[in-house]
Amino acid sequence: MSLKPLAHLVETQASSQEVYKGNFLHVFVDHVTLPDGAVATREYVVHPGAVMVIPMLVDENGAWRVVLERQFRYPIGQVMIEFPAGKLDAGESVATCAQRELLEETGYTAQEWARAGLMHPVIAYSTEFIDVWFARGLTAGPQKLDNGEFLEVFTASPEELLQWCMEGRVTDAKTLAGALWLQNTLNGNWKLQWQPVAALA
Amino acid sequence: MSLKPLAHLVETQASSQEVYKGNFLHVFVDHVTLPDGAVATREYVVHPGAVMVIPMLVDENGAWRVVLERQFRYPIGQVMIEFPAGKLDAGESVATCAQRELLEETGYTAQEWARAGLMHPVIAYSTEFIDVWFARGLTAGPQKLDNGEFLEVFTASPEELLQWCMEGRVTDAKTLAGALWLQNTLNGNWKLQWQPVAALA
Repeated sequence: MSLKPLAHLVETQASSQEVYKGNFLHVFVDHVTLPDGAVATREYVVHPGAVMVIPMLVDENGAWRVVLERQFRYPIGQVMIEFPAGKLDAGESVATCAQRELLEETGYTAQEWARAGLMHPVIAYSTEFIDVWFARGLTAGPQKLDNGEFLEVFTASPEELLQWCMEGRVTDAKTLAGALWLQNTLNGNWKLQWQPVAALA
Repeated sequence: MSLKPLAHLVETQASSQEVYKGNFLHVFVDHVTLPDGAVATREYVVHPGAVMVIPMLVDENGAWRVVLERQFRYPIGQVMIEFPAGKLDAGESVATCAQRELLEETGYTAQEWARAGLMHPVIAYSTEFIDVWFARGLTAGPQKLDNGEFLEVFTASPEELLQWCMEGRVTDAKTLAGALWLQNTLNGNWKLQWQPVAALA
């Protein structure tokens, strides 16, 4: 099966206009030419991209635990359970962003890292991608939260996390997708290539 | 573990202003009071909510297959592999939306439906939720695509879908989260409550 863009499905840009530029959201309206030659508009957010980290700890019995956060998410109006994540700074590599966000939000540093993959959370109306990394060999330290950032760090067993996904206690899509990687990594179906932190770009 | 809003994390609305109203995107900037009493701004998209359907077919050997779509997604610039999904119409129930979107996009009608759960794809900057449904007992028919909508329908085994998730050929977050539900449903860990279509609200 080819996943290359298929000409009979592709839309091409005819024009592009920025219609809102906030501190965070940049909104564009483009005119596009549809596969049948008709013209349509596409409204979307331009996003710098982000990284999510699945940090893994070993408990006193040798069992895996994952590091999670509780954070109030204003558009949803709820405290959400999430894996640590954050936006790329200008010019920052995804590997550097992963280490920075893990440290800032949770205080942990990691000796080993593995890139799991990529996801697109909002394909209908945002350019956002989220690069997904695993981290292990964790050392705890103080959080370095941004001014105005409030979140709690806690740990759970993979079984607890999957139970919460099933029950609807975890509804954040990036964390649900992270649970898919975690489940298949721990059951041996999906393989990670671990690298020492010093080997990261 | 309590998932109720925790007072020391909650932000409260101080003001709200619509800053962009397009045909599809409605963007707001709110001022909020942070847990420490400071004021911050929150920029976000107001979305009507959506439904995703995981449609299951039985092949000639009695094995499950799922119905998927290929669709060009302009903000990503790629043809994406996705489960069928679409936005709620005004006043429409999620069960009605699920049936309508499955029919319009794929041509299938389903005899049995099961609600799997809920996800929030963009908790940082959109109110969007996606209600997740399984459908089975499918009967094929003609697509009823909207004017200007171009997508291809195809089927895959659950094993193929999971392979593509691992390989990065599927990067749509809602479809990755759907794969988590599919995997755990088929392996018996997560139970669905199937209802005949006539019993849906």
